[in-house]
Amino acid sequence: MAICAVYKPQSLHSTCSISAPSKTHLGFHQKQVVFYTTSGWKTSKRSGSTNSPYVITCSVGNSQTVVIGLAADSGCGKSTFMRRLTNVFGGAAEPPKGGNPDSNTLISDTTTVICLDDYHSLDRTGRKEKGVTALDPRANNFDLMYEQVKALKDGIAVDKPIYNHVTGLLDPPELIKPPKILVIEGLHPMYDARVRDLLDFSIYLDISNEVKFAWKIQRDMAERGHSLESIKASIEARKPDFDAYIDPQKQYADAVIEVLPTKLIPDDNEGKILRVKLIMKEGVEFFSPVYLFDEGSSISWIPCGRKLTCSYPGIKFSYIPDSYFGHEVSVLEMDGQFDRLDELIYVESHLSNISTKFYGEVTQQMLKLSDFPGSNNGTGLFQTIVGLKIRDIYEQIISSKTKTPVEATKA
Amino acid sequence: MAICAVYKPQSLHSTCSISAPSKTHLGFHQKQVVFYTTSGWKTSKRSGSTNSPYVITCSVGNSQTVVIGLAADSGCGKSTFMRRLTNVFGGAAEPPKGGNPDSNTLISDTTTVICLDDYHSLDRTGRKEKGVTALDPRANNFDLMYEQVKALKDGIAVDKPIYNHVTGLLDPPELIKPPKILVIEGLHPMYDARVRDLLDFSIYLDISNEVKFAWKIQRDMAERGHSLESIKASIEARKPDFDAYIDPQKQYADAVIEVLPTKLIPDDNEGKILRVKLIMKEGVEFFSPVYLFDEGSSISWIPCGRKLTCSYPGIKFSYIPDSYFGHEVSVLEMDGQFDRLDELIYVESHLSNISTKFYGEVTQQMLKLSDFPGSNNGTGLFQTIVGLKIRDIYEQIISSKTKTPVEATKA
Repeated sequence: MAICAVYKPQSLHSTCSISAPSKTHLGFHQKQVVFYTTSGWKTSKRSGSTNSPYVITCSVGNSQTVVIGLAADSGCGKSTFMRRLTNVFGGAAEPPKGGNPDSNTLISDTTTVICLDDYHSLDRTGRKEKGVTALDPRANNFDLMYEQVKALKDGIAVDKPIYNHVTGLLDPPELIKPPKILVIEGLHPMYDARVRDLLDFSIYLDISNEVKFAWKIQRDMAERGHSLESIKASIEARKPDFDAYIDPQKQYADAVIEVLPTKLIPDDNEGKILRVKLIMKEGVEFFSPVYLFDEGSSISWIPCGRKLTCSYPGIKFSYIPDSYFGHEVSVLEMDGQFDRLDELIYVESHLSNISTKFYGEVTQQMLKLSDFPGSNNGTGLFQTIVGLKIRDIYEQIISSKTKTPVEATKA
Repeated sequence: MAICAVYKPQSLHSTCSISAPSKTHLGFHQKQVVFYTTSGWKTSKRSGSTNSPYVITCSVGNSQTVVIGLAADSGCGKSTFMRRLTNVFGGAAEPPKGGNPDSNTLISDTTTVICLDDYHSLDRTGRKEKGVTALDPRANNFDLMYEQVKALKDGIAVDKPIYNHVTGLLDPPELIKPPKILVIEGLHPMYDARVRDLLDFSIYLDISNEVKFAWKIQRDMAERGHSLESIKASIEARKPDFDAYIDPQKQYADAVIEVLPTKLIPDDNEGKILRVKLIMKEGVEFFSPVYLFDEGSSISWIPCGRKLTCSYPGIKFSYIPDSYFGHEVSVLEMDGQFDRLDELIYVESHLSNISTKFYGEVTQQMLKLSDFPGSNNGTGLFQTIVGLKIRDIYEQIISSKTKTPVEATKA
């Protein structure tokens, strides 16, 4: 894989990347040692003439790139989630400027989201030839994934490959610079133990089979004209590898968003009204689970009543301490959907530990992105809240790292 | 019924009672017009020599005796409730000093509790002869009950009959002076519409048949050696009149305390662990129902969890808006019992609108009376809370009445 490179640091404690001086989108958090040189050091293939003056930026030790992992099957709303997350930090998330139009990367001021499909070691033809799916670890290069995520976490830019979803081919790589927050999203962010250990926080989007089926029917049958049989067959074909390689990752997640059919309407299988669980691991550094009314107790709450009138079939929340793959967790559940703004703000005002910076921030975020899927139910609510928690985690990590050793000892 | 009298007021707006000058237990809230006379006016039979100087106390208009009704079957904890209530106001509640040792009345600084059995028109023999139970309205004098409760409410002392529970006879009457708070407790405080209309607040203690049966077995079989058959027979014999005359009163109550078997232990019929509901009518003047976390919504809460560790089978609360005999009500339910002080204070700290004057007052009250039945469960908790609500209602009524008409118009 000659097209992929990790820029080696000059020494163990100083790490460098290079770019043309006009490009200034370097993270402000690096301790910059900037100097001009007329001979390119480890120039990127996209850097232009080697005679141009380059900016070499070195981050000396103490890297502050926070790494977030988001795992889910394809078509489960990862990109919506990512757009909600980047929106929390403000500023638009866009593909790298002037790069491959089929790039899977999204860059905003604060966050860089990379898609782990870019670490496919086999392209579409290759997978067909070997008879493996994209879900199979053998179709993915975990060594490179680990090296590059580690490099970025260490403040080192990397040349990351691009898997072109349109052509099914591996395109030439793109330069990824260490951002404040690196999100790695895809099928396997927690599969490889080395990559997993690099994650400061991890999320698993767990769509139940019933809902996945309902969504596929809606999209593939209604919009793309597929037959019910072909949809069923495609789900069944995918299932063994999904169960073997993707699903087990949820045991490692710090937060799981589980999407289930509603219980508000008996025997509902339309998949339109959803029951969504936010499963939050206890004891995770910098992460304090959201709670309802009384932390650590068991609550069920139907906010619809005298003060809040809801449309049918209403909204029901629950909050319970539970255990999940042997870990102590808190589970917040929302069944139903918001039909009016007052329902959303009322619910927000009764949740605690949601890491907002002002009253109504969750509602504001959801309204801003109200055309995104799930903006009226628990998927949008919990994705938004997880976005706020990630901002909070990021700020705490930065704050803890910028303390002097003496301060850190005191704290 | 010559032994019973209502002291007539001198005019429509001034009401008087008389006592020897050494006796000074007159309500401070009366607008006192005190003068000495050598000829007794409407002297009480117990006033001593007519040559002694008497204190005649006249309350002019604007009486401020607040009247509370408490209905329940016999043996359902009315007296425990009454002792909890009088305790809220401080000071011991005792039978009238120097009077009939079998008096059913309890007097404290603030409250006078009279037992409506005193308005039996038929004594035990009379009831037997006529074949009516004490539950039957025909065995009770509602005209006198109304006249005397009205007189007391108007600030007029009365000579109330005494039904002697020991002998089953009607004893000579005792003088009852208008207190700050008059509680009428017994089988029929809300039966007669005229009496009912005099009540500023009314409570019904509703013990479910299962619990009543378990309690009777415990008391009559274990402690008094009755047979199971005789207990069943006595309950069955009582039931038709109870259903006809006592039970229907609960529709008029502002608050109902309903005592049911626990649901925490499947198929439990021991009656030791109780599930207790406090059903509170909405829209009652001066009474704002207690709520849990979010007023007007539906909540269930198991406080036992990470912060509070409870003994088996735990404690479960619920709070729901509901309808009761066509009235809008809020229902607070507690299932289970407190085994430790921290459980009680934890629960208290999460209830709202409990009308305490300081943090932990409910817990303090329950600890003070910890040897009373129900001090570790919802009966004691809700009786204590209702006691605090009655204090609050009393204070609001007094405060609203002492406002000048102009102020009252403004309010």
